Amino acid sequence: MDASEDILRKAMAEKQLALEAQGNAVRMMKTTGATKQEIDAAIEALNGLKLEKASIERQLQAAISGSEGSLNREAFRQAVVNTLERRLFYIPSFKIYRGVAGLYDYGPPGCAVKSNVLAYWRQHFVLEENMLEVDCPCVTPEVVLKASGHVEKFTDLMVKDEKTGTCYRADHLLKDFCNEKLQKDLSITPEKAAELKRVLAVLDDLSAEELGSKIKEYGITAPETKNPLSDPYPFNLMFQTSIGPSGVSPGYMRPETAQGIFVNFKDLYYYNGNKLPFAAAQIGQAFRNEISPRQGLLRVREFTLAEIEHFVDPENKAHPKFSEVANLEFLMFPREEQMSGHSAKRIPLGEAVSRGIVNNETLGYFIGRVYLFLTRLGIDKNRLRFRQHLANEMAHYAADCWDAEIECSYGWIECVGIADRSAYDLHAHSEKSGVPLVAQEKFPEPREVEKLVISPVKKDLGLAFKGNQRMVVEALEAMNEKEALEMKYTLESKGEMEFYVCTLEKEVTIKKNMVTISREIKKEHQRVFTPSVIEPSFGIGRIIFCLFEHSFYMRPSKAGDEHLNVFRFPPLVAPIKCTVFPLVQNQKYEEVSKVISQSLTSAGISHKIDITGTSIGKRYARTDELGVPFAITVDSTSSATIRERDSKDQIRVNVEEAATVVKDVTDGRRTWEDVWSAFPHHSSGSADE
Amino acid sequence: MDASEDILRKAMAEKQLALEAQGNAVRMMKTTGATKQEIDAAIEALNGLKLEKASIERQLQAAISGSEGSLNREAFRQAVVNTLERRLFYIPSFKIYRGVAGLYDYGPPGCAVKSNVLAYWRQHFVLEENMLEVDCPCVTPEVVLKASGHVEKFTDLMVKDEKTGTCYRADHLLKDFCNEKLQKDLSITPEKAAELKRVLAVLDDLSAEELGSKIKEYGITAPETKNPLSDPYPFNLMFQTSIGPSGVSPGYMRPETAQGIFVNFKDLYYYNGNKLPFAAAQIGQAFRNEISPRQGLLRVREFTLAEIEHFVDPENKAHPKFSEVANLEFLMFPREEQMSGHSAKRIPLGEAVSRGIVNNETLGYFIGRVYLFLTRLGIDKNRLRFRQHLANEMAHYAADCWDAEIECSYGWIECVGIADRSAYDLHAHSEKSGVPLVAQEKFPEPREVEKLVISPVKKDLGLAFKGNQRMVVEALEAMNEKEALEMKYTLESKGEMEFYVCTLEKEVTIKKNMVTISREIKKEHQRVFTPSVIEPSFGIGRIIFCLFEHSFYMRPSKAGDEHLNVFRFPPLVAPIKCTVFPLVQNQKYEEVSKVISQSLTSAGISHKIDITGTSIGKRYARTDELGVPFAITVDSTSSATIRERDSKDQIRVNVEEAATVVKDVTDGRRTWEDVWSAFPHHSSGSADE
Repeated sequence: MDASEDILRKAMAEKQLALEAQGNAVRMMKTTGATKQEIDAAIEALNGLKLEKASIERQLQAAISGSEGSLNREAFRQAVVNTLERRLFYIPSFKIYRGVAGLYDYGPPGCAVKSNVLAYWRQHFVLEENMLEVDCPCVTPEVVLKASGHVEKFTDLMVKDEKTGTCYRADHLLKDFCNEKLQKDLSITPEKAAELKRVLAVLDDLSAEELGSKIKEYGITAPETKNPLSDPYPFNLMFQTSIGPSGVSPGYMRPETAQGIFVNFKDLYYYNGNKLPFAAAQIGQAFRNEISPRQGLLRVREFTLAEIEHFVDPENKAHPKFSEVANLEFLMFPREEQMSGHSAKRIPLGEAVSRGIVNNETLGYFIGRVYLFLTRLGIDKNRLRFRQHLANEMAHYAADCWDAEIECSYGWIECVGIADRSAYDLHAHSEKSGVPLVAQEKFPEPREVEKLVISPVKKDLGLAFKGNQRMVVEALEAMNEKEALEMKYTLESKGEMEFYVCTLEKEVTIKKNMVTISREIKKEHQRVFTPSVIEPSFGIGRIIFCLFEHSFYMRPSKAGDEHLNVFRFPPLVAPIKCTVFPLVQNQKYEEVSKVISQSLTSAGISHKIDITGTSIGKRYARTDELGVPFAITVDSTSSATIRERDSKDQIRVNVEEAATVVKDVTDGRRTWEDVWSAFPHHSSGSADE
Repeated sequence: MDASEDILRKAMAEKQLALEAQGNAVRMMKTTGATKQEIDAAIEALNGLKLEKASIERQLQAAISGSEGSLNREAFRQAVVNTLERRLFYIPSFKIYRGVAGLYDYGPPGCAVKSNVLAYWRQHFVLEENMLEVDCPCVTPEVVLKASGHVEKFTDLMVKDEKTGTCYRADHLLKDFCNEKLQKDLSITPEKAAELKRVLAVLDDLSAEELGSKIKEYGITAPETKNPLSDPYPFNLMFQTSIGPSGVSPGYMRPETAQGIFVNFKDLYYYNGNKLPFAAAQIGQAFRNEISPRQGLLRVREFTLAEIEHFVDPENKAHPKFSEVANLEFLMFPREEQMSGHSAKRIPLGEAVSRGIVNNETLGYFIGRVYLFLTRLGIDKNRLRFRQHLANEMAHYAADCWDAEIECSYGWIECVGIADRSAYDLHAHSEKSGVPLVAQEKFPEPREVEKLVISPVKKDLGLAFKGNQRMVVEALEAMNEKEALEMKYTLESKGEMEFYVCTLEKEVTIKKNMVTISREIKKEHQRVFTPSVIEPSFGIGRIIFCLFEHSFYMRPSKAGDEHLNVFRFPPLVAPIKCTVFPLVQNQKYEEVSKVISQSLTSAGISHKIDITGTSIGKRYARTDELGVPFAITVDSTSSATIRERDSKDQIRVNVEEAATVVKDVTDGRRTWEDVWSAFPHHSSGSADE
């Protein structure tokens, strides 16, 4: 808890006690016949206390909100979202039918941004690393998602309004209750506030029983009806369907794209010449039937995932290109810093790996590549951090896991997960399908391997254990290396030892003559093993929403009478790269504009012509709001100006070179600075902006 | 029926009769005591007839298969499919779990081909025409698909094995029966054969009752068990699911992407500055829960659609860019040619529109653009035709509809549908949602419009019809222009007329004094109307499968001892544009190869290095089989050769220019012929191929 908040809550509690005492005193005086003067003085003191309490209340309110508090953040978000919706970056799906919670359409500019982000993802990851991209269906048979654990475990805890049947996420209700209490009930004690904050901190770890008992303890009811709530129970978040007409083959819409890659491991490994490491990648839709979606574009029922599964020898997780990212330095938030209450700090990636903060080079390499990907898209590097999962957040099989979290108006949001999932997924599908999903390392020449050999002496065991002999033999043979070595040592030193045979559910006494345990040298020609997988998984919609917020700003119009909205998208991301305007409505200028438009089309530059008679200033404002980086204005038949969105600087170019200049800057072959120094400048007249 | 087939079937029937007669004669002779000589002569005649019948049978078999018959086509398909599966162009989904019928993954090269096809689609249609691309969810609430008619009508007729419950498509069973009879039962009469062919021709138009009675008539049973079949009944092909946790909001996985565009019409029209025409486009997954998928990649349960909805004023379907495609000439198959038994013929597109064969310019424009798109991808223009829907194939509301059909080993396959759907879809959603989906045409100045005004004289009507007056008034006011003009004429000439009032369910006599019908001049400022929509809809998977078949060929290896497979993909489509080989394993050459690889990466050219020690000939063969158009072979530290896949020609280039040359040819800035004439040639040594 914030220190000043703590002090203020204490002051509030004291003032409340004082107020109550003074109120009692006043009532007492009235019944015991005090003088009017005495009573008036007591009332004045009471009013003084009330004013003091109100003042503390205001300070506390401000402390809770923070100086750049949640109110400001919501106002900012509203400004962004209004622009996004008005300019059709996105649209609530099926709006004319009053929509469906958690489903959104990308309208034209949003769709263009999305397809630019995906194209860059392909270039930055798939092409650069020679990944094997695959494209698998969304409809998935049950057996696959049973093997992956989704049928059993992909659930959220739900409570139902006991009268209306309306469903809520149990943790959301508890979270809302705690937040509301903390923000609006200023009378709670510091101890109570600390407790509520503790609950908020451990919310994700609470079991159904713990959640249920907290809901009961706090008397939480259904938000709309105030009806009592059911106990929390798990609701599977997969959309279920049925494959084929018979109704006997259940299927689900995939909750992630990764499983399609895992089940193809064998073919992909073969395609890669039976060599490790290699990565497969997939971009596609995924589906989660959220109980009650909130947070707009951040928590939706259908979304685009881009996932990479990098398969690697568990004994060698070095990465040949790690040196290319080792010098990057950015905000990292290791487990240790989180546990000790510190904040994220800048650590060079090379150091993070060499100090063992990040488990291995390959994981580190992908963290670095993700950092480059996000910042090149336009994510603010000061509002991006890599947070390591705490031990309790991580699946038991995971070796290490880091989330790329981006700060937006909803707080720090997980946008990319980068996990070393060890051999878990391949193991699970090997087991369920009966098809071994393994890799081989062929030794250049056979290797001599020292192996521990356990040889039960059946004759002596038979004499000692009779009908139980077989169970004892099996238990002896099933010992792992450590157990066998312990037994060898004990038998050699003490001649016998107690040994637990689980199939007999009891201990038996093993004597020295009953088993020989020895080290032998064997020749092996290859190693067969299940590869580890390192999985960077990108929530494309979340990245795009954060990108919208990080790119948005407002600036005053030239006349200073209004605020104009701008998205500062880099050309890579901008939905349209360029607009073409004739300065005034005039057939000659329009013809020149069309010529420029044709050269832009053949150069593959997405653009728009605007030949409306609107003032040039308004036209610029309209395109700034779409984040269009360049505007070509035709003000003569031989030349035109090119304006850069953020600086509003303009250069003058010949009509023939206009498209080429825009293409060069858009493709990153030249910077705007290069161009600015190479061409004559144009200062806009008073009519322009 | 084919003429020769008809003659042969007749000859078969005659020979069969002769055989039976001769057989009877032989038996008769044996019982009536003919001499051995007589009997032997009769048996010889019988054997002669048998030989003649066998010969006719062979001829008939050949006539049915055709010279390039179905057996050859299947062998060809098998060769293509083997290569596709072996090189992981695609993989049956969830193969390690024995797969799911109708679901396929694209493996790495298939996925690359698909993403190239989609990128070119975006460039050729969306960018070129400034279309508004949107991206809507697959999960769709029931109300939307009720409005579109899918909940009611998106069905296939199904029959069930009455004992096991196994489901079959009713038309498939009937089709299989007819085809099998025609191909394998050579004893059927020409009349019977003609009947079966007639059934095959009208298969798509048969009702449930008609299908059921044919199945009964032919005694068709379940294919595996021979059990009796149920009557055919409709099965809805949409995958059903439930949105949210309550189970009360049914939803479906969309069967097409178009509906997402229609429901957004209002916003998109506004985004386009309230101007027509404009087009919206969408690429995305669609789902059809096929009863029993067959034809491999052609009939699947999940597939990628790319759809365009071009909204246009129904009174003006001219297209400003039609002249750009008017001179194209390709195979068209108008309704009339199909009805009169002719085949497709080459018609210049301009002529097809001007003669009214194609309904309007906009439809014609898209037919032309689709032709260019498909042939530039590599579809053989001689195996591509545009077939007009027959009247009975078309929805009642459609103005005209053409399918781009591509011939592959399965026959002529519909790959793109190009339909003028009139105002049907927008009407349907306007009605169901209550939100008007209309466009306005503002007149530059108000127009005087002559309107027919119907004014019932309520006093006289009241006297005549008393309590029924209101119903009569409403019926009079509801008359359309034609009815009102008829009444005006009749009343003026005869003084009265009989008039049917449907709410009264009887005729009443209307006299001249009871209503005045007159033409009046009114001022109108705008026209409000529902736009027509012209919809080109692309089945991406089907196009890709046909592309695979059209691109595949085999050529002998240099030694002539084996056949090598090649895909002649144009660079636009090729999954990998280039491979880089060091000629021999050698550190220097490998380093040079890596340098070239880096320049290819930064030029954005997808490529692969192969540093295995395999012979260069084998390496070429491996890449030919993936359709890689260019191979750079490093055989010195300063220069390299570039080999073109189909001609096997090689040029010599400096190491520094290798990537640029490949990029230029790949991007279409230069042709291979240009490059061939600009660089020194390299003749491959005997070791090369």
